[in-house]
Amino acid sequence: MAEPLDAAAMAAAREELDRKTKPRASLGRLEELAVQLAGIGVDEMRPAIVVAAGDHGYTDEGVSAYPSEVTRQMLLNFVSGGAAISVLARELGAELVVVDAGVREPVDDPRVRAVRIGAGTASAARGPAMSRDDALAAIAAGRELAEELAERCTVVALGEMGIGNTTAASALHAALLGLEPALVCGPGTGLDEAGVRRKVDVVERALAANAPLGDDPVDVLAALGGYEIAFLVGVALGAAAQRLVVVLDGFIVAAAALVAARLEPGVTEYMVAAHLSPEPGHRLSLEALGLRPLLDLDLRLGEATGAALALPLLRSSLAILRDMATFESAHVTDTGR
Amino acid sequence: MAEPLDAAAMAAAREELDRKTKPRASLGRLEELAVQLAGIGVDEMRPAIVVAAGDHGYTDEGVSAYPSEVTRQMLLNFVSGGAAISVLARELGAELVVVDAGVREPVDDPRVRAVRIGAGTASAARGPAMSRDDALAAIAAGRELAEELAERCTVVALGEMGIGNTTAASALHAALLGLEPALVCGPGTGLDEAGVRRKVDVVERALAANAPLGDDPVDVLAALGGYEIAFLVGVALGAAAQRLVVVLDGFIVAAAALVAARLEPGVTEYMVAAHLSPEPGHRLSLEALGLRPLLDLDLRLGEATGAALALPLLRSSLAILRDMATFESAHVTDTGR
Repeated sequence: MAEPLDAAAMAAAREELDRKTKPRASLGRLEELAVQLAGIGVDEMRPAIVVAAGDHGYTDEGVSAYPSEVTRQMLLNFVSGGAAISVLARELGAELVVVDAGVREPVDDPRVRAVRIGAGTASAARGPAMSRDDALAAIAAGRELAEELAERCTVVALGEMGIGNTTAASALHAALLGLEPALVCGPGTGLDEAGVRRKVDVVERALAANAPLGDDPVDVLAALGGYEIAFLVGVALGAAAQRLVVVLDGFIVAAAALVAARLEPGVTEYMVAAHLSPEPGHRLSLEALGLRPLLDLDLRLGEATGAALALPLLRSSLAILRDMATFESAHVTDTGR
Repeated sequence: MAEPLDAAAMAAAREELDRKTKPRASLGRLEELAVQLAGIGVDEMRPAIVVAAGDHGYTDEGVSAYPSEVTRQMLLNFVSGGAAISVLARELGAELVVVDAGVREPVDDPRVRAVRIGAGTASAARGPAMSRDDALAAIAAGRELAEELAERCTVVALGEMGIGNTTAASALHAALLGLEPALVCGPGTGLDEAGVRRKVDVVERALAANAPLGDDPVDVLAALGGYEIAFLVGVALGAAAQRLVVVLDGFIVAAAALVAARLEPGVTEYMVAAHLSPEPGHRLSLEALGLRPLLDLDLRLGEATGAALALPLLRSSLAILRDMATFESAHVTDTGR
């Protein structure tokens, strides 16, 4: 269970920032980040990037521009160092943890953590994507990883890979935010207009096939699916409980964050929204979570690439709080503005 | 004189990015950056941050929340390592070049480069801030620094310090964009509403005192001032001529960029707009320059802090282009989307 942030530490950080040689609050959101990190208790960057992968029954309904086998191929690409997130993790000095949460065909590579809840979800357009027990098992496995990471990390960036998972995320957005599917379905990583209409149709069928969804977020998660999404719910909950900073990537991770926040509203205080995805539903979930994205770079890849790109801003916010001189120490006139 | 970007290198970078294991263009603006840097001919980050400082006669008109002596105090803080930009430069591995382009009282410190065009400008509300010869001398000195930096750097981030210089920048924006002063005057680093009204009044008086301004950008620059702004015009022109990436900080640097672009329109191809300042005129100058800011973090400090925070994005864009696997090399199915 996530504890509230440390209000005294946040007040102390704010006071300290106001003594630094700059007009009050003139470093804007960098100062807000520094205060949030102080409240979490993080004063050092030791980042891990978790990329969880899963396959989706939604792909049977023709919702993706890519075949499901790409999920598995990309898992190997992640650990072989050639994917975008592999490059960024290396370059930014972050540990990359690649998790198979339920890809159709298992990956025979020890560098991939096998937490296989199943061999891809069922199509939610025809009934629940997974059982409630599967959803709970995935969440528990995610929590377990967070507990392990807390021993050596201070920041965990969440990302995903899964052909078809923008459809799962759209369905979860529609259900959890009470919105029409058309409002939260976008082109994902490569759909044309007809493809987006097909996605809206599939989400509508998934909501109908699983009606009534009820109020339990775990039931909604199980019905509309995503093993990797369920796993990331657990990582988010576990990381917040361990007082790690939780850096959210894009639209699919936001679906996991929505579920996590329904289960434990306090976790949002530990979250940083790295970027705004062009997916239309993303803005809506971030608003619901009370989070404002740091970057807006038209990123629509996933894999935690947006979360990774935000890590240097966290690092800089810590450096500002730690290393800047005060008006007094630098003999600079302070007008109190 | 800045040459056009290398169109063949840009096309090659685009093709290379399309072979990488990600949907086409899914890394959004990071890919655009990689293509621009390829066109400039930069494939490695060796960044310098230039912070130019100057004092302003505008302060005699009561336009700033801070006394002019703070400019000089901050110069010492920059080189002593305690200012925000000192911390960020260190943390991001960038060389920091601190320039006195015309502070009222000289700074007796060898770590500050003295390029003193004068001891602060005259008040533009009563006539020209500086002579045309002074403006040309400042531009020439800036070009000279850029030529020196080109021997060891590939990227130059531009920043400034100067109590009163948001007023100079506002006057230059109004004159060069043909806008009412009220549209381009904002709170700067700490003015209240009455202070902003006073600033509008001072800019109106400066435009009247120097009317007719004519079309020559050097005359406009000399009339409305800023030794540090004039110096940065030269750095921008010189850096582009040397095929360096020119990373712009906020509103005041944008005024220098506007002048540079009037003198040589081609320089904007070498420019990257790091962030969007809350100053109302900044959005307008970036539009006029055809630049879209990378960050929007409510930064209003200056000192090149926003430009510094954008450097990791440039670094990541280069890593993506250089290090990612292709569909072929990673055995990932390419659907051409």
